[in-house]
Amino acid sequence: MIYIGVDLGGTNIAVGLVDEEGKILLKGSTPTLLERGPEPIIQDMGKLALELLEKGGYTIDDVASIGVGVPGVTNPETGVISFCTNLRWHNVPLTEILSKIIDKPIYIENDATVAALAESVAGVSKGLKNSIFLTLGTGVGGGIIIDGKIYAGTHHVGSELGHMTINVEGIRCTCGNVGCWEQYSSATALIRMGREAAEANPDCLIAKLVGGDLSKIEAKTVIDAAREKDPVAEKVYAKYIYYLAMGIVALINAFDPELFALGGGVSKAGDFLLEPLREEVKKYIFYKDLPYARIELAALGNDAGIIGAAMLGK
Amino acid sequence: MIYIGVDLGGTNIAVGLVDEEGKILLKGSTPTLLERGPEPIIQDMGKLALELLEKGGYTIDDVASIGVGVPGVTNPETGVISFCTNLRWHNVPLTEILSKIIDKPIYIENDATVAALAESVAGVSKGLKNSIFLTLGTGVGGGIIIDGKIYAGTHHVGSELGHMTINVEGIRCTCGNVGCWEQYSSATALIRMGREAAEANPDCLIAKLVGGDLSKIEAKTVIDAAREKDPVAEKVYAKYIYYLAMGIVALINAFDPELFALGGGVSKAGDFLLEPLREEVKKYIFYKDLPYARIELAALGNDAGIIGAAMLGK
Repeated sequence: MIYIGVDLGGTNIAVGLVDEEGKILLKGSTPTLLERGPEPIIQDMGKLALELLEKGGYTIDDVASIGVGVPGVTNPETGVISFCTNLRWHNVPLTEILSKIIDKPIYIENDATVAALAESVAGVSKGLKNSIFLTLGTGVGGGIIIDGKIYAGTHHVGSELGHMTINVEGIRCTCGNVGCWEQYSSATALIRMGREAAEANPDCLIAKLVGGDLSKIEAKTVIDAAREKDPVAEKVYAKYIYYLAMGIVALINAFDPELFALGGGVSKAGDFLLEPLREEVKKYIFYKDLPYARIELAALGNDAGIIGAAMLGK
Repeated sequence: MIYIGVDLGGTNIAVGLVDEEGKILLKGSTPTLLERGPEPIIQDMGKLALELLEKGGYTIDDVASIGVGVPGVTNPETGVISFCTNLRWHNVPLTEILSKIIDKPIYIENDATVAALAESVAGVSKGLKNSIFLTLGTGVGGGIIIDGKIYAGTHHVGSELGHMTINVEGIRCTCGNVGCWEQYSSATALIRMGREAAEANPDCLIAKLVGGDLSKIEAKTVIDAAREKDPVAEKVYAKYIYYLAMGIVALINAFDPELFALGGGVSKAGDFLLEPLREEVKKYIFYKDLPYARIELAALGNDAGIIGAAMLGK
């Protein structure tokens, strides 16, 4: 049997046919064109899946299920997307619409949770019982695997790990909470901290790398400048690592997973992220003499969305 | 069958015979006398259990298992207590010693985790799948129940919820971490904040209630003064509620349990704690329009230690 995985993003809809081991057999994508509203977008998911089946020489009878990862909160029992803030979707009956195109079991889930599942089936956390996936991008997204299965909480509103408070006296978050982790450990946060430092130190390498146009600072700018040992950038990056470590330490002390898989833009820094992060985590965990979670890069990159969505039905 | 539960504390060893529903049939206690070291203390657990069996007219054949809750971290697989900071125990082979007195299956677990299990079997979270027990005492202890079972993590170092960072720029904790939740939400923290406020405001009711001897301030002193609407005490207590809410919000956003059960000294404030706490939590959670965890008082009080320990073998 094959599994269809759909990764719904604000720019593209990516669809893939996936085998039982979580390997992508065939994939394709189509622009989301958000302004159309949910119905044609969801129909496009189904149409693209049917096209891929035909292209691959499969029939609908080869399909076990369809899974969809969405950037928001879902109700897997009703098949309704409760909210997708970035898409401006609210109470969208995804399963009802999609099942008119393909009549197979349909599963929906949050995209970071889906990526956590993908890594747990076919990526860096393959075969582990308990793992946490973190995506360090616009925000900090989280997915939790417990006992080899997705853990999304009682009311399916859990694993919003970027919205754990790490600074009770800190920055107010867009979510209404104070000092949320993602205000300190997302790519956005690294950019903000880099820009503030460059404003205060116009001669620093961060400012030079963007030709003085501080609006062009990216996470990579700060990281590149820190690699070059620019003192201002090194200080910003060390602070970023500290904040990231603090959230991971909280999760170790609370969840004690076997592994953290890091994805998202900032994770592209590779060992330049992992090595200082592991050092920093070691300083602050509760049980310093007992084994604790490994911290690694996620392995599947963008494919995690398709693979994890497909594996929802497995 | 009956289950023996042992609650090991720094002052007393409490032992109880517990039925399959988590009801205590008979209980007793004996002073711990810490200075003796682990071996005689563990032998006393067994002897007290045997005495209770005799007193209750039971034989060893009626016993299914023995469970022991300890104020520290355990390795349930080896039956060794890894650390008990307050008892100054380190690598104590509890199961080996106790099995010489009573040859039955022996289970050991952290005491806050044991209390979480007790509440989940016979207390306020009875029958719920996912719940979190918090004890607001000298520190903030935590126990996690997922899918009706104890969740202690991969390496059995999880559920140290009092050591989640809620203030990255905050107070250094005895554990080596920074801004741990228990530095803000334990009874100890409330006392510290009350004392600081009374030092700055010697005419406040907190100071009056202890006759000016600020070393006598207890959590109850601050709470009593806040009940009497003393403005200084009200401010301290509101801050305490805010900190407590922040940790609970982090746990809702991450774990999304069905219920929080609050125990420990501060929980004796009852509705005077629960009502403002629920209001504060509601302000900061991520999904304000979706159902989320209830916050209630734990139901079993001190008996939770015996009941939960007994139920480890069930």
